[in-house]
Amino acid sequence: MTTATSTPAGAAGAPGHEPVLGDPFGAVLRRCWEGGGGRDLAFEVVERDDGFIIAQDAGKYFEPRDQWPQTEQWAVERAQGRVLDVGCGAGRHGLALLESGHEVLGVDSSPGVVEVARERGLDVVQAEFTGLPEGIGRFDTFLLLGNGTGLLGTPERARAILDALAEVAAPGALLFGDGLDVPTPPDRLSYEQWNSERGRPEGFVRIRLRDRLLASDWFEYAMIPPSDLDRILEGTRWELKSVEKSAVHYLATLRLRD
Amino acid sequence: MTTATSTPAGAAGAPGHEPVLGDPFGAVLRRCWEGGGGRDLAFEVVERDDGFIIAQDAGKYFEPRDQWPQTEQWAVERAQGRVLDVGCGAGRHGLALLESGHEVLGVDSSPGVVEVARERGLDVVQAEFTGLPEGIGRFDTFLLLGNGTGLLGTPERARAILDALAEVAAPGALLFGDGLDVPTPPDRLSYEQWNSERGRPEGFVRIRLRDRLLASDWFEYAMIPPSDLDRILEGTRWELKSVEKSAVHYLATLRLRD
Repeated sequence: MTTATSTPAGAAGAPGHEPVLGDPFGAVLRRCWEGGGGRDLAFEVVERDDGFIIAQDAGKYFEPRDQWPQTEQWAVERAQGRVLDVGCGAGRHGLALLESGHEVLGVDSSPGVVEVARERGLDVVQAEFTGLPEGIGRFDTFLLLGNGTGLLGTPERARAILDALAEVAAPGALLFGDGLDVPTPPDRLSYEQWNSERGRPEGFVRIRLRDRLLASDWFEYAMIPPSDLDRILEGTRWELKSVEKSAVHYLATLRLRD
Repeated sequence: MTTATSTPAGAAGAPGHEPVLGDPFGAVLRRCWEGGGGRDLAFEVVERDDGFIIAQDAGKYFEPRDQWPQTEQWAVERAQGRVLDVGCGAGRHGLALLESGHEVLGVDSSPGVVEVARERGLDVVQAEFTGLPEGIGRFDTFLLLGNGTGLLGTPERARAILDALAEVAAPGALLFGDGLDVPTPPDRLSYEQWNSERGRPEGFVRIRLRDRLLASDWFEYAMIPPSDLDRILEGTRWELKSVEKSAVHYLATLRLRD
């Protein structure tokens, strides 16, 4: 096999174009929402920096509670008091909690996603998780769901996010974060090899989202197995209370240290 | 907005990698088939040469007859005698005809797709549509379904394919081909502009399929509106018998000239 870089015969020297920097995740959730929030309306395309690409149906961001992975259902059942839904997406977890009487604020970095979640009735701020706005008050529960621990990124970034959340945490606050607990898939072995060659730590993938002509910036996504959680929490104000598993998912419950 | 070509900060000069030339469509159908042929198992990712990218659930290639677009159902209902399913994919049309007692041969250029269709019980040859093997006999009906007219490509290629099919057509043979009859979507206007700048005719997109680390070669895909069919058939042995519409789809029925 050869790499597919050549211009096809008869292409008259046409260059390949690159996508345009934008908010593809916002565009995908917007399209899915405007189509009714079901299946087959819009697809999230994720590209890794070695050319690996996958897609999934964006309808999952609008699924009702009974269709979520068990781990997400546990987290929402156990939420207490005032809730911050970190990386709220279209708001499926936050909206479920709102319905059951909780006060909920969502936070997402994508302007398009924030708009969709607001239209669906969730109170949301647009912000980076490390740059939460002043005056949002304190929270008893933090949700980091939908393979949410992946968004913690590198250990440095994970600590910066966990510190920022601790700043707005009420005493005894809980943080529910989920992730995947699976063996490294065979198709990631060559990527890990490449990571090692370029001096990057194991378990991180550099990805971007794409939709139609749009691409996001490249960002670091973490594959955090449960066994790495203790190490990531070291030096933060959070302690690991429990890790529970269901199918390929795990749910980690963190508690703010006294 | 700027193009998303820059290496991300902190990337230590890591180059972006290109995918590997292979059979992504075969890989996608294989994964979907091995998972049971349903939804959410595998996704077809289509990339245009300007960076535009879309995906769809590969489960549609395994859908039962009552879930197909009306135009595909019409074609299969009207098939007569011995049938060649051109670009048979996972074989949904061919297998339906086999069940209703027709003799059916499928043809597809993807080795992986051919394997899947054979495992599902369809007799299939792996070949380019312009290079059908000797000795396959003659056919009374040709199917070119699933936006099949798109596979005709440029007018030159369309004529080459139609000539090759005429060579194995029985007297009075019919060809059913479907396509989309929709206004040019706004997001294709800039592509048409680029086509025009590089001296390419309107209505063609250069695309490739991608799956995980694999990419196909770039190839020409045609957006043939019903009004262009007469022009494409000019000089071929096929005449346009009818064009029928249902929702966004059209079904063209061609008849071999006497």
